[in-house]
Amino acid sequence: MSSVNTGPTGFQAVREANLGVVLRAVRSLAPCSRAAIAAATGLNKTTVSSLVADLISRGLVRETGESTQRRVGRPGVLLALDDSTIAAIGLEVNVDYLSVVAVDLVEQELLTRHISFDARAAGPEACAHRIARATAEAMADPALAGRGVIGVSVAVPALIDAPSGTVTRAPNLGWRDTPLRDRLTHLMAEARLPTAPILVDNDANLGAVAEFRSGHLTRTPDLVYITGEVGIGAGVLTDGNLLRGSTGFAGEIGHIPLMEDGPECGCGRRGCLEAIAGIEPILRAAVPDRVPEGPLSGDGIAHLVDVAVERAEAGDATALDTLHTAGTWLGRGIATLVDIVNPAAVVLGGYFVPMAPWLLPNCRAAVREIAIAPDAGGCRVEPSTLGLSAAARGGAMAMIDALDSGRLPLPPARSAAPAATSGPGPNAPA
Amino acid sequence: MSSVNTGPTGFQAVREANLGVVLRAVRSLAPCSRAAIAAATGLNKTTVSSLVADLISRGLVRETGESTQRRVGRPGVLLALDDSTIAAIGLEVNVDYLSVVAVDLVEQELLTRHISFDARAAGPEACAHRIARATAEAMADPALAGRGVIGVSVAVPALIDAPSGTVTRAPNLGWRDTPLRDRLTHLMAEARLPTAPILVDNDANLGAVAEFRSGHLTRTPDLVYITGEVGIGAGVLTDGNLLRGSTGFAGEIGHIPLMEDGPECGCGRRGCLEAIAGIEPILRAAVPDRVPEGPLSGDGIAHLVDVAVERAEAGDATALDTLHTAGTWLGRGIATLVDIVNPAAVVLGGYFVPMAPWLLPNCRAAVREIAIAPDAGGCRVEPSTLGLSAAARGGAMAMIDALDSGRLPLPPARSAAPAATSGPGPNAPA
Repeated sequence: MSSVNTGPTGFQAVREANLGVVLRAVRSLAPCSRAAIAAATGLNKTTVSSLVADLISRGLVRETGESTQRRVGRPGVLLALDDSTIAAIGLEVNVDYLSVVAVDLVEQELLTRHISFDARAAGPEACAHRIARATAEAMADPALAGRGVIGVSVAVPALIDAPSGTVTRAPNLGWRDTPLRDRLTHLMAEARLPTAPILVDNDANLGAVAEFRSGHLTRTPDLVYITGEVGIGAGVLTDGNLLRGSTGFAGEIGHIPLMEDGPECGCGRRGCLEAIAGIEPILRAAVPDRVPEGPLSGDGIAHLVDVAVERAEAGDATALDTLHTAGTWLGRGIATLVDIVNPAAVVLGGYFVPMAPWLLPNCRAAVREIAIAPDAGGCRVEPSTLGLSAAARGGAMAMIDALDSGRLPLPPARSAAPAATSGPGPNAPA
Repeated sequence: MSSVNTGPTGFQAVREANLGVVLRAVRSLAPCSRAAIAAATGLNKTTVSSLVADLISRGLVRETGESTQRRVGRPGVLLALDDSTIAAIGLEVNVDYLSVVAVDLVEQELLTRHISFDARAAGPEACAHRIARATAEAMADPALAGRGVIGVSVAVPALIDAPSGTVTRAPNLGWRDTPLRDRLTHLMAEARLPTAPILVDNDANLGAVAEFRSGHLTRTPDLVYITGEVGIGAGVLTDGNLLRGSTGFAGEIGHIPLMEDGPECGCGRRGCLEAIAGIEPILRAAVPDRVPEGPLSGDGIAHLVDVAVERAEAGDATALDTLHTAGTWLGRGIATLVDIVNPAAVVLGGYFVPMAPWLLPNCRAAVREIAIAPDAGGCRVEPSTLGLSAAARGGAMAMIDALDSGRLPLPPARSAAPAATSGPGPNAPA
């Protein structure tokens, strides 16, 4: 994603950049007057008034009906973000589920869906169809009634070529060089859905965005989110920015080699972290009587996790040993990541969350023991509070961020109700 | 180091920030007119003229004596950086040497010294004395005659608390919680040396700065520099910025655990990368008849490296086997780093450079084989061209960068020669 500064220059680009500046100012200052925006941005008042009128006409900013108190001159009408007109949709496809989240302009959740779905068995084409259908269902949901969808984000447990929206390699889904964005764009056009930009990104990266913007460690600038699914991935934030690397493949903690001649991994190598401490080997060892031969079918995983947790709660030695050992291996992998990126916090997500009471003690001990920095550089290891919807939620939030920072086109002006008189929408906060 | 935007506000701070803006503009545009600077920075011409006069009086900018050609109006006098008045000094202390580099404002080298020195045996207090003496010698060197020293950087193979200039832990030097900056400040004051800000940083970080600003992979924004000394450290640049992590301890690739029950490491753990593939275990295995019992004394290392290289050149099986095996382990460590940060290039520095012909083939093969991204995400592994002075040079360059970006105080106005008539200095480029 290119920054607004690298876009085409010229008056239109400058105006669009300034619309983003004012939008971000309203987000951080609301409720605020036009004068306050001018003071904060350095833009002059006439320019601010014109940009605010434009944002009101596009349904992104509204007048609250309140005013500033002034001793001298006209009172300033207060502005806020208009949370009634747009929505951003985030989906995650993982081995055994589809997750869907929609948020409004202030990043409040409008809708959350968890759909059990055997994506591994389905293959990329059937998955694309299921994602398109889930998007259509979200767009048609009463919770989104009357809203324009500014963009759709799709999280995949994979190496992603983000600029083209291609899934380069998804070992646990069995996909390789799948042009997911193009396929979805085509399917959504075929279904006559409203056109919306589609962004495909790595599930761990978007999980990290969700943690940074809404988790219990919100605004921790050096934060790592670790997915706990069949695959283990890391979304790494350094100084508040996603660490993507030169080709977008950073954060692949699941495939660092931890055990020589260890168990075979979905990637074809041996002894990778996720082959030892991913959800699949954990379930095979924790509830061996309940796991069939061959690769786990996607739709049974959530239930098996419940069984493993029940047995651990009941003190079953096999389940407890498995989770304690997995916690140690997870800690070894995290210690390596701590040695290299020195985060302030590592958040365990996905199915690691219900298993956290038994994973965390050994995991934390291993991180402290193995990382070179004293006390692991102060790194905390905590379970996520966002559940299996973290990546979908992060994707929806990334869309709002892209809108704010000019990387997504702003919605067009609405023909209805002249801007100056439009009151708060039906979902506006009191 | 805080950015200029977080400093105190007010007119003086704005003026200092704008001096930095103009300084950077001259750096990128020179030779250039005042009008060109105004156009590039958005500052008005009167302001630019005043700021330029200020920079000339401080000896940072000069008039070249050339003019722009104009059809109308006065010709514009051309400006360039004045490379004749200031110097930045970078030192590195490592197990077996001190390295000193001084550069001018355009980052050309004024002086380079390599001093064999057994820092491990000396201990922190004697080291501080030796560093202070080396700094005094550099300041008194004819190559720096007439120049003001804007700052002194000290690179240490250690976890560093950069804000306080304290060496938190240097396993291979045996230091712990050594307040190096305070000690040096005191020693330099005692020796009545000119006062200059002192910056203490990790050797690998400053090596990465040197590679980014002057190595053969210059301006590669996702680049890792790996120190090849008794310790192995990584300086990680992502998107052109140093990855420091939450407490400044990022890049500790030397202590990621690669071998269970492996050889003991200076950090007290077992099987760390540097305990397997650092210079010390390489020399012990490659030239076993020449290495004494007990820890290597610092002052013999460079010679032993020469012997190992000579034997490898002569086809000695022990030396060759050792280097080939070390190359594989180095590749395993680098593959882990590639999985996590996905750099475009990894540069091997220090003593790895003379050994590179025998380390690189297996190292590159291991990186390609183990990293999950296809072709290791396009990551190249290359030897450095900067030798043992990389970290010292990077530190000196970091001082120039700090000056440009307002993180170091600008030198005071010089009373001599009125600004407008000062010609090029004795060392000015043609």
